[in-house]
Amino acid sequence: MIIHLAPDCTESIQTDILCAVRAVGYTPTAVQTQFGRYIVCIGKQPIDIRVLGSLPGVRDIYYVSDDYQLVSRKWKLERTTIDLGDGVTLGNGAFQIMAGPCSIESEEQVCSIAQHLQRCGVRIMRGGVFKPRSSPYSFRGLGLEGLKIFARICREHGIKVISEVMEAAQIEPMYEYIDIYQVGARNSQNFNLLDELGKVDKPVMIKRGISGTIEELLYSAEYVFSAGNERLLLCERGIRTYERASRNTFDINAIPILQDKSHLPVIVDPSHAIGLREFVAPVALAGVAAGADGIIVEVHETPEEAASDGAQTLNYEESEQLFHQIRALLSVRQSFS
Amino acid sequence: MIIHLAPDCTESIQTDILCAVRAVGYTPTAVQTQFGRYIVCIGKQPIDIRVLGSLPGVRDIYYVSDDYQLVSRKWKLERTTIDLGDGVTLGNGAFQIMAGPCSIESEEQVCSIAQHLQRCGVRIMRGGVFKPRSSPYSFRGLGLEGLKIFARICREHGIKVISEVMEAAQIEPMYEYIDIYQVGARNSQNFNLLDELGKVDKPVMIKRGISGTIEELLYSAEYVFSAGNERLLLCERGIRTYERASRNTFDINAIPILQDKSHLPVIVDPSHAIGLREFVAPVALAGVAAGADGIIVEVHETPEEAASDGAQTLNYEESEQLFHQIRALLSVRQSFS
Amino acid sequence: MIIHLAPDCTESIQTDILCAVRAVGYTPTAVQTQFGRYIVCIGKQPIDIRVLGSLPGVRDIYYVSDDYQLVSRKWKLERTTIDLGDGVTLGNGAFQIMAGPCSIESEEQVCSIAQHLQRCGVRIMRGGVFKPRSSPYSFRGLGLEGLKIFARICREHGIKVISEVMEAAQIEPMYEYIDIYQVGARNSQNFNLLDELGKVDKPVMIKRGISGTIEELLYSAEYVFSAGNERLLLCERGIRTYERASRNTFDINAIPILQDKSHLPVIVDPSHAIGLREFVAPVALAGVAAGADGIIVEVHETPEEAASDGAQTLNYEESEQLFHQIRALLSVRQSFS
Amino acid sequence: MIIHLAPDCTESIQTDILCAVRAVGYTPTAVQTQFGRYIVCIGKQPIDIRVLGSLPGVRDIYYVSDDYQLVSRKWKLERTTIDLGDGVTLGNGAFQIMAGPCSIESEEQVCSIAQHLQRCGVRIMRGGVFKPRSSPYSFRGLGLEGLKIFARICREHGIKVISEVMEAAQIEPMYEYIDIYQVGARNSQNFNLLDELGKVDKPVMIKRGISGTIEELLYSAEYVFSAGNERLLLCERGIRTYERASRNTFDINAIPILQDKSHLPVIVDPSHAIGLREFVAPVALAGVAAGADGIIVEVHETPEEAASDGAQTLNYEESEQLFHQIRALLSVRQSFS
Repeated sequence: MIIHLAPDCTESIQTDILCAVRAVGYTPTAVQTQFGRYIVCIGKQPIDIRVLGSLPGVRDIYYVSDDYQLVSRKWKLERTTIDLGDGVTLGNGAFQIMAGPCSIESEEQVCSIAQHLQRCGVRIMRGGVFKPRSSPYSFRGLGLEGLKIFARICREHGIKVISEVMEAAQIEPMYEYIDIYQVGARNSQNFNLLDELGKVDKPVMIKRGISGTIEELLYSAEYVFSAGNERLLLCERGIRTYERASRNTFDINAIPILQDKSHLPVIVDPSHAIGLREFVAPVALAGVAAGADGIIVEVHETPEEAASDGAQTLNYEESEQLFHQIRALLSVRQSFS
Repeated sequence: MIIHLAPDCTESIQTDILCAVRAVGYTPTAVQTQFGRYIVCIGKQPIDIRVLGSLPGVRDIYYVSDDYQLVSRKWKLERTTIDLGDGVTLGNGAFQIMAGPCSIESEEQVCSIAQHLQRCGVRIMRGGVFKPRSSPYSFRGLGLEGLKIFARICREHGIKVISEVMEAAQIEPMYEYIDIYQVGARNSQNFNLLDELGKVDKPVMIKRGISGTIEELLYSAEYVFSAGNERLLLCERGIRTYERASRNTFDINAIPILQDKSHLPVIVDPSHAIGLREFVAPVALAGVAAGADGIIVEVHETPEEAASDGAQTLNYEESEQLFHQIRALLSVRQSFS
Repeated sequence: MIIHLAPDCTESIQTDILCAVRAVGYTPTAVQTQFGRYIVCIGKQPIDIRVLGSLPGVRDIYYVSDDYQLVSRKWKLERTTIDLGDGVTLGNGAFQIMAGPCSIESEEQVCSIAQHLQRCGVRIMRGGVFKPRSSPYSFRGLGLEGLKIFARICREHGIKVISEVMEAAQIEPMYEYIDIYQVGARNSQNFNLLDELGKVDKPVMIKRGISGTIEELLYSAEYVFSAGNERLLLCERGIRTYERASRNTFDINAIPILQDKSHLPVIVDPSHAIGLREFVAPVALAGVAAGADGIIVEVHETPEEAASDGAQTLNYEESEQLFHQIRALLSVRQSFS
Repeated sequence: MIIHLAPDCTESIQTDILCAVRAVGYTPTAVQTQFGRYIVCIGKQPIDIRVLGSLPGVRDIYYVSDDYQLVSRKWKLERTTIDLGDGVTLGNGAFQIMAGPCSIESEEQVCSIAQHLQRCGVRIMRGGVFKPRSSPYSFRGLGLEGLKIFARICREHGIKVISEVMEAAQIEPMYEYIDIYQVGARNSQNFNLLDELGKVDKPVMIKRGISGTIEELLYSAEYVFSAGNERLLLCERGIRTYERASRNTFDINAIPILQDKSHLPVIVDPSHAIGLREFVAPVALAGVAAGADGIIVEVHETPEEAASDGAQTLNYEESEQLFHQIRALLSVRQSFS
């Protein structure tokens, strides 16, 4: 159950509401985001929500049967739009392509890719500077210095920046250089990191865990939202199954299911979802046809020489063709609704 | 390694070739299909295939590195077309929709659906009369009598029939009433059944096992092909994973991978792939966008009253809309190549 | 709900009971096994079972909430014992080791292994003559002739025979030469085969499907039982998961869970469960410690030269040591209860 | 490849060795632990390791073909022993039971359990104060204050403390109150946390990820070891599969495989592995029979009232009986070797 507080609700009125919630046997959590104030109430027994709804200070009250609440579409029917500024919006009908290398490698590399994206009309660039790697002996990224280069060049090209944050201590130093924080699959249930990202006023894209359920992804988003940050994106990037012919199994079912359960935009990552460069395009198009709100895809001038993930990275020609096909598909998709 | 025999190759020349194959340390299997004669040669050591290629009676010879051979695209670059007669072809660019109920229930039911399909321009109807059910106490289908009704009405409407065969003893009685034999997911590795289907001159669609690998599906097709039947279709219908939000996980990756590995057409079954009626359409469209050669989808006049699988079955209005969307998507897809 | 009929219940009284069951809204299935007559009643609405229990011809009536009924422990608290004759019993406290090669290869091979087993006090020998193989070009077993040799030599050594049946047509020819029919993992949901095995008066061991659930295994057993054959064994042989370090993942949890849900004996197959010879022993011992009623393990004089499954097969020395350890563990286990 | 440096190897000699490693095309990483100094060399091309082995400052050199190195058994045949002081050692033949509640709840609770463990001869107590929970609205533990109470009471009873650390910032505050840091399944690939735990001189137990591979677990241990901490334990706690009859699937295969690949002790967690209280004992015994070096099990005076995980927690009577059975099994197991 979610109680949306009125803007003029005072501290003392809020205290009264918290008491009233406890009185009906529910456990309240007060949530303040950049956009509103809520009281999330967890409990099992049936109650008449009008009793609480008529209290002073209450703007609205919603009954949500799911265990996740604030990210549920049951109380917020209008889909979330993420506005990144400079005319770049995502969600609720606005589709965005995010593209770029797995790892930021050098100023020259960033420059070349940013120009390619600009030519193709892509407004968001991805690139990792903190790289989670299975082996401690693998390349772990250029770190904050890499991010600074990445951000400077992107801004020169009117391109927004998305990059992975691996721990709470990186949030503040990254803040100035980033437009969307990405939480990687391995950190999808790093609850301390999620809590801290709730305190930031920049959007966060949460990748589904390597074998995370759809419900767990929604819970992870609930962590960030309930800690104060409403501007969230969910990302399906393939799950771990027994099949060995591809790197992961792209759970295309997750797209309509997530959009049904939540008001948050859903992004697909076809590069990780299949892990094989020659098949990234059909899988990406499948994601668009299934209704995704955006796509994040790995692109590099010479994938064969990329510092990481070369086997699933498109070159300029391949990516340009894919972007054209995505846009053609989008215009058919729009004709359906 | 596959040796394609010349049409005029005599028994005694074939015997010489078999000897020559054994002499280089390979194990030969003679295969005769409705379309050609082959010798499949299994072995590991490297050989100069020209030695065998220059023998009398050899039309062509192909080196295939996969463990499956005849279904591999490495020797047959041209994609297989399945011609069902009356202008109904499938594969190699020809897309077909197959639709119909999970179970054949009555003459009235079949009539109603056949008329709906005819109206929508669908040329192949699905419907089960032998139903594999987890519980022995569930409805197991109308059997052969149901198939007779199903076939009669379809023929009156110019519609082809696909239905599941559960054991070798059913092949012959079904023969007269069927256009495509379907092997269900639970029988995907019923090798005795596959062997026997190799002796029939009607097409066979093999569904991927509930947790079958892409490679195992190709092996199952190899059973049928090597037993004599080249007219095969592969069907992706979702796999079993840990995710519980959908009935199965639709392995969309399998579509481009199967098409890369094999010359056989690839069909998608969105109904089983997600198992939730309200999401069948986006998943079906994803399959089309990924490049599928056809789709098989469950349709019923009143899904709520269907004898089985009602929760994943579309009604007439939903299915008609989906067919329109599929065709719109197909025309964009064709513009890509 | 299960109605156990009295021995003197006549046809006409049975008809009355069937009517009474239908009258309360349940669907009855009459079951006749070698040991008794039952009416299985499937329905959802709550009823007072005493109404049916007091009818003439009813020996006893049991309320079973599971969807599987006859294999449930809810109506039959005493565990099933399988008596193979000559003092070989299995289940309900009687532990048996089954051992032998993956494939029957020759008279010499069978002789050597039978002598080894006799020396070790093992009373049941396994060996395949019909081999399900992923590739049609692999060795598929010696067939019925192999089974005849296998059976003859085993009988000379006082050893019982278990071997896999792959299709209904093999049941009758195998009958004379076999003590336990084995249903393989790939045929675990071959319902036609299960139905036919219900008509035989020899025990049947059903292996869990490659990715079968515990519930599906119980349903498969319900097929055989409800078709007339009560003498069933369940076999856990490892399931398919994402982990690649072993051939399968041994679901040790399945042992206590199956024993809690069903009265049927539970056998473990450590050879397939891990697929790596050097680790078969610890996994086998784990199965015994978890409470298994028996074990089936692959043994060959020279595993390196075995026609199939050599990588998971123990030699004579290894198997003898394992049998000793199993017996030591069994005596500790008995001290626990 | 691992170069073990001699104790008297100076900085400048080490620099020479690093140069020599680079000269043969390998990438060296200098590692300093509490017990030794190593240079881990990653590369692919074959080299004659004697060239490096004969350099001054080299104590020994080992060729390790795995991608993980320092945790591999290929260079360190003697199994690792973890000495916790006061006669509590674990590994290399010394078995330990760790037991206690999921969450630390109160001083009374800790007291009662500590007394129970002392009575049973258990020397290590588990208990969470920082709890990773899927939902942000669930109980998240008593925090550092809870740990202080936990530690004080355990020390009064001669019992060692193991508790989960969720982020790098908690390491230092926990240090004084802890004997083993536990890394939970969700943090198994939290590489920043693993790096930081490498700098601590207390043992670390790493749980396998919810769907982590055996190889990934070894890599995670390699992170901690290569950052300086050799005192590591690996924990198998069940993996996520399609099976829904138990909370997780206990991968018993992992025990012998981990012990074959690594010199680190392997602990089993039967409570999470099956998640069903009535079956914890058979699963625990299976783990012991398979060769585990220790066990960690959830125990509470009144599991029904536990703040978390009550459904998989043993009460005092059940746990006492299990401890007896484990010890009986251990004495049989020792007779095998």
